[in-house]
Amino acid sequence: MKQLINSGGHIRQQLLAGLTYTYNDSLNWQPKTGIVTKKRLPDNKVILLSGGGCGHEPAHIGYIGENMLDCAVMGAIFEPPASSEILQAIEETYNGHGTLLIIKNFEKDVANFLEAEKQAKAKGLLVSHVIVDDDCSIESGTFEKRRRGVAGTVLVHKMLGAAATEGKSLNDLQVLGETLIPSIKTLGVAFSPASPIGLIPQQYELAEDEMYFGIGIHGEPGYRIEKMQSSERIAIELVNKLKQQYPKEALTQVAVLVNGLGGIPLLELGIFMNDVQQLLDIEDIEVGFKHMGNFLTAYNTHGLSLTLLTIKEKKWLEYLNTPTDAFGWK
Amino acid sequence: MKQLINSGGHIRQQLLAGLTYTYNDSLNWQPKTGIVTKKRLPDNKVILLSGGGCGHEPAHIGYIGENMLDCAVMGAIFEPPASSEILQAIEETYNGHGTLLIIKNFEKDVANFLEAEKQAKAKGLLVSHVIVDDDCSIESGTFEKRRRGVAGTVLVHKMLGAAATEGKSLNDLQVLGETLIPSIKTLGVAFSPASPIGLIPQQYELAEDEMYFGIGIHGEPGYRIEKMQSSERIAIELVNKLKQQYPKEALTQVAVLVNGLGGIPLLELGIFMNDVQQLLDIEDIEVGFKHMGNFLTAYNTHGLSLTLLTIKEKKWLEYLNTPTDAFGWK
Repeated sequence: MKQLINSGGHIRQQLLAGLTYTYNDSLNWQPKTGIVTKKRLPDNKVILLSGGGCGHEPAHIGYIGENMLDCAVMGAIFEPPASSEILQAIEETYNGHGTLLIIKNFEKDVANFLEAEKQAKAKGLLVSHVIVDDDCSIESGTFEKRRRGVAGTVLVHKMLGAAATEGKSLNDLQVLGETLIPSIKTLGVAFSPASPIGLIPQQYELAEDEMYFGIGIHGEPGYRIEKMQSSERIAIELVNKLKQQYPKEALTQVAVLVNGLGGIPLLELGIFMNDVQQLLDIEDIEVGFKHMGNFLTAYNTHGLSLTLLTIKEKKWLEYLNTPTDAFGWK
Repeated sequence: MKQLINSGGHIRQQLLAGLTYTYNDSLNWQPKTGIVTKKRLPDNKVILLSGGGCGHEPAHIGYIGENMLDCAVMGAIFEPPASSEILQAIEETYNGHGTLLIIKNFEKDVANFLEAEKQAKAKGLLVSHVIVDDDCSIESGTFEKRRRGVAGTVLVHKMLGAAATEGKSLNDLQVLGETLIPSIKTLGVAFSPASPIGLIPQQYELAEDEMYFGIGIHGEPGYRIEKMQSSERIAIELVNKLKQQYPKEALTQVAVLVNGLGGIPLLELGIFMNDVQQLLDIEDIEVGFKHMGNFLTAYNTHGLSLTLLTIKEKKWLEYLNTPTDAFGWK
């Protein structure tokens, strides 16, 4: 794999410049920082703030927009932003209604966001958070094996964003987030690993006829390497593993997110979506909402993830369907 | 490279099923054909119809929507649809206001669409066409070396789509198309070739440190292989070559389209867009409109194309900015 970058190491700067130039009608970027905000920050609702490393585009900048995020703070490739920048973003976007941080469950992300929250609170600001841990390829319990926050995070952005516009309080949004998140489960598969050569070390190799179930969004190894299979067989593996995460009675109506990991053509996502749809149909699981595209990527990984969200209230479908102009959601 | 497909060869069928399932609020597909239409076909304006081979997603199905296409007819991977299916689509979407075919300039595409037009006219239907030939990596004049229709086609969909909604006649739309098209120029570069293994033959190889300027959207070879360069150097090559296509006085205001070819991460497109912006800024070329994403892809090619459109009338910017719900345009 090759890379279209420039030497000198200013990848974050160049990327944020390019993205915010492209969408300069709706986004503001503070040069030399990782802080991107809505052009017009709201003064009548809770601020939603997320962020993480670069290399997951369109996450999270692509989710800044009406009825989604108000601010995203981005770090270097696969590195979360420093707590000082997160604190700066909290302070600069603060409007008195409070700020909710949406954090992906990685050790450094959690540490940096919670440190910023602590410091903001010490300054008298109203700040709270939710931690997204939708990846079910890894069981919780140990330091290395925490459930990571992956593509399901985008559904949390979407649903809490719509709820925030409705005027929900900071506390209500946190409670809603904590109700939603256990209903969201994601599993990924890679056919070739993330290869940001020279930027971060590559963590595994795959032979020409191999694929890897359960990989992470930073090129982390998965749970099983197998010979490359058909889209249908892969859909069976992912749907079955995801179904096992829920009590059977919960699986009446779901939302489905098919997420490309950055190096997969839409043609392959489309074929895979068709296989997923047929499996859910056979199982009599109603699909109340579906979405497909590159939402939370792993640099140039040729692979995808499948996310299910069990719908517990009609209101959740409304939140998913609320229009937004955020460019990453489409 | 690997492929996420199923055996049995029904790729077109499975892809169209998956795409139209995902967007079933707005799209209708006739199973076993390559014909996809708007859910609600208009009865008060000229029908815009395009199409081509699969493998270029989101083109062209992703451009069906308000103020863009009404119908797309898709063939097998990198193969245009048969004239009989194009004719069927013309007849089934016909509303008496006439039908404009938007054709990419490839021999088989042109032959099949024009044959369908001829047969439709013989049945008394009002049909006309425009042929998009924006690729300037290849000089016209010989059978093999025709100027191909590539990513600029999407701008033609967008602008004629907006003009059709305004109520322009079939003749006026054709004239507008023929005025626009010479202002649209595109040039591509690949870092790894399209590799739809077993689906079509791979037409060139690149070493680990090589890239190829001027490649086509079906994996056709380009005009020069070089050692891999920085994003900035590649932007200089593409911008300079594109500028040479226009008289200097035409380059006052342009639209810019940065198009991913299917296997490139958005991070790299963003960095490249930043480099293009800086070059145009130095040259005092005003960018009146810009857009970035995967618009017309070449299966899983790691590469991109850059399209410029010189803006001759303010109205053209209005057409580019007219909202649409077509999922590929975003």
